[in-house]
Amino acid sequence: MRAALLSIGDELALGQALDTNSAWLARELAARSILTDEHRTMMDDRVALAAAIRDLTARYDLLVITGGLGPTEDDLTREALGDVLTPDRPLVADTDALAGLERWFAEHRIPMPETNRSQAQRPEIMRMLPNSHGTAPGLAGRHQECLVYALPGPPREMKPMFTDHVAPDLPESVDGEVLRTINVHEYGLGEASAAERLGALTERDRKILVGTTASEAIISARIRVLGAPGKAENALEETASRVEEAWQPYCYGRDDASLSSVVGGLLGEAGKTLTTAESCTGGWLGKTVVDEAGSSAYYRGGWVTYSDKLKASCLGVPLGMLQTFGAVSEEVAEAMARGALKAAGADFALSTTGIAGPDGGTDAKPVGTVFIALARKDREGSSASVRRFRFTRGRTAVRDRTVKSALQILRFSLLGVSDDMPLLWQVPR
Amino acid sequence: MRAALLSIGDELALGQALDTNSAWLARELAARSILTDEHRTMMDDRVALAAAIRDLTARYDLLVITGGLGPTEDDLTREALGDVLTPDRPLVADTDALAGLERWFAEHRIPMPETNRSQAQRPEIMRMLPNSHGTAPGLAGRHQECLVYALPGPPREMKPMFTDHVAPDLPESVDGEVLRTINVHEYGLGEASAAERLGALTERDRKILVGTTASEAIISARIRVLGAPGKAENALEETASRVEEAWQPYCYGRDDASLSSVVGGLLGEAGKTLTTAESCTGGWLGKTVVDEAGSSAYYRGGWVTYSDKLKASCLGVPLGMLQTFGAVSEEVAEAMARGALKAAGADFALSTTGIAGPDGGTDAKPVGTVFIALARKDREGSSASVRRFRFTRGRTAVRDRTVKSALQILRFSLLGVSDDMPLLWQVPR
Repeated sequence: MRAALLSIGDELALGQALDTNSAWLARELAARSILTDEHRTMMDDRVALAAAIRDLTARYDLLVITGGLGPTEDDLTREALGDVLTPDRPLVADTDALAGLERWFAEHRIPMPETNRSQAQRPEIMRMLPNSHGTAPGLAGRHQECLVYALPGPPREMKPMFTDHVAPDLPESVDGEVLRTINVHEYGLGEASAAERLGALTERDRKILVGTTASEAIISARIRVLGAPGKAENALEETASRVEEAWQPYCYGRDDASLSSVVGGLLGEAGKTLTTAESCTGGWLGKTVVDEAGSSAYYRGGWVTYSDKLKASCLGVPLGMLQTFGAVSEEVAEAMARGALKAAGADFALSTTGIAGPDGGTDAKPVGTVFIALARKDREGSSASVRRFRFTRGRTAVRDRTVKSALQILRFSLLGVSDDMPLLWQVPR
Repeated sequence: MRAALLSIGDELALGQALDTNSAWLARELAARSILTDEHRTMMDDRVALAAAIRDLTARYDLLVITGGLGPTEDDLTREALGDVLTPDRPLVADTDALAGLERWFAEHRIPMPETNRSQAQRPEIMRMLPNSHGTAPGLAGRHQECLVYALPGPPREMKPMFTDHVAPDLPESVDGEVLRTINVHEYGLGEASAAERLGALTERDRKILVGTTASEAIISARIRVLGAPGKAENALEETASRVEEAWQPYCYGRDDASLSSVVGGLLGEAGKTLTTAESCTGGWLGKTVVDEAGSSAYYRGGWVTYSDKLKASCLGVPLGMLQTFGAVSEEVAEAMARGALKAAGADFALSTTGIAGPDGGTDAKPVGTVFIALARKDREGSSASVRRFRFTRGRTAVRDRTVKSALQILRFSLLGVSDDMPLLWQVPR
């Protein structure tokens, strides 16, 4: 079964808004063994939409349309579907849908504008899908051999409608074969080394595909297996394990796993606590730790010591040290981590200090220079290690890579990986 | 002049990666008066790609392709272009491009893999565009009446290639008319009220279009004007001013402006400093302030007092107050802000404390309950105000809206807007 997606709206075609629905739908379809060959995004133009619907329904088994179901005159999905599915007949008013709309407005105590009546219109041979999160009902039907669905554009309305009313219609396996996918993620190895370590695993095979993508310095192996139920899962698991082994110890998880969720899990298991002392990241590290629900079990909190004064008053970094070595230095990074460890009474402390840019660089410490320290409580009291990095690609990337590197350093420590294990962009001593 | 975009790659079609290139390109084209009617995303399939190129070049004046220019066997853009533009002739090797590739590998001290030679191949009637950020050269040519460009997929290679080698080829005005756009943003008014305040401004006019979109609770009016040079800019400016007036005082800026950039500008102008004391946002507010280059001029830093212990030890929140009222309370929010103001010696302090969820809610303080306090230095010493909110839509949304509301509260204060001006999701006393 092959699918196409069509997203509709001037704001999408003109790039004023980003279409995230299509990628979500393609993943949902892939999880049900349906490959999406094509997405289209088009303007609110009835003639062009009808032509696209005609073309796509002729070439695919499934077409999912999003958008253009609102009440305004530039919402033309219903009309364009009518032009193709029932070309010589007008749209009809759906009594149930109209009653549903009236109920929705009554419940929200808003008088129903006349224009919203158009949302209850449908081509005669289509049926309507209820919308539990908004006013626009969806549409379902068939044109020749192709299943056709039209869903509202807002993701919070579209996603539950797909899950509740489209997915149950779709076959679980096609021609006796199912499609299974896993994404495996690593940080700190670099794209070229990651690809090299995979070696022959990425050679194209009709049944087992392994490709790599990089997104904000996270390298992911996308593994896709087509096969008989049972066999496909086994081949997928075996391939994923081989990728994970090839990427040790940089590989931190699969699919929805993030560095912060994995580190949070390890801290929780070990019953250990974390604190943070941030300069160049300005709170981003703490924010990322707190992204995880339940982080209050292991995260004590931290300091954003952006000014030298706060580094001294909150974390006890000696003013003489700040003057001698500068705020961006190995010494200050270590003192920040040790100071935070003590002040928060935590088991681990991560600190960051660096020059995110665009200004502030020197020959000795160019823009992108960052020091990350990890302090640990141990039997002798505490110990600390510091790494120096030289990140590239601008202020946001420098700060993002700093956060990710800090979390990977903590993960290494929690797993007993040596402090000498290098990370991408690290400057050797 | 009408354009189409074609992005290529299995990972895009399957939704494993999000196509952000097309939206960027559509905005760049719109800035040059070229409307993009259609985007397509397709799998790495030579026959299907050639068919799409044939179809799109027949219907549009400009086609920009991204992706499929890498060195591997699933990079098929060159071949598909050859199938359409020079159907009976093989691709030719471009001597300059080959020399450029060899130079790139020599400079990076990597032996050039044999497969990379394919990147110097082109259809005979196309020319190559140099890539200053990677190995894949671009392609430029014409098929019948349509200009055709092929650019590499990675945004950091694609964007400079477009700016340096495609944009200079494009006309500045079309049929004597230019297209001009502005986005105007507001936070805190809500989508329905924002639309209501615009009234007749959003009615469809062929020459002046005003539409609204919501993204993470930021409401934007997208204004698009088509007209003669000079006249278009005037109509655009007049329309933008009317939107800004309608949205006062919630409207904070245009186009690339963010709440943090605007607040940073106001603090800088006033010569005032800011500190932060965060609980539920966990550093996100500090991170957002530090997103702005130059923020060290006005941001002192802050505290992530995620635990009660740190609220007491760092900010002087009395333990009795924490026990009596709970960490999520008006009293604690105010004490956090006042404590931070004093400890950092800043002019303004923002604090956040709330229940981001998914757990931890009670009947009196359900999930989504957040208190935001603003403390200010003044002639009498200091003053503080606290607002209570009830945010919805999950942990990430609750924290994101908390950060935005805090920045809007500070912006109101810097502009002299009354503390009584309500914000969306605020709970009246």
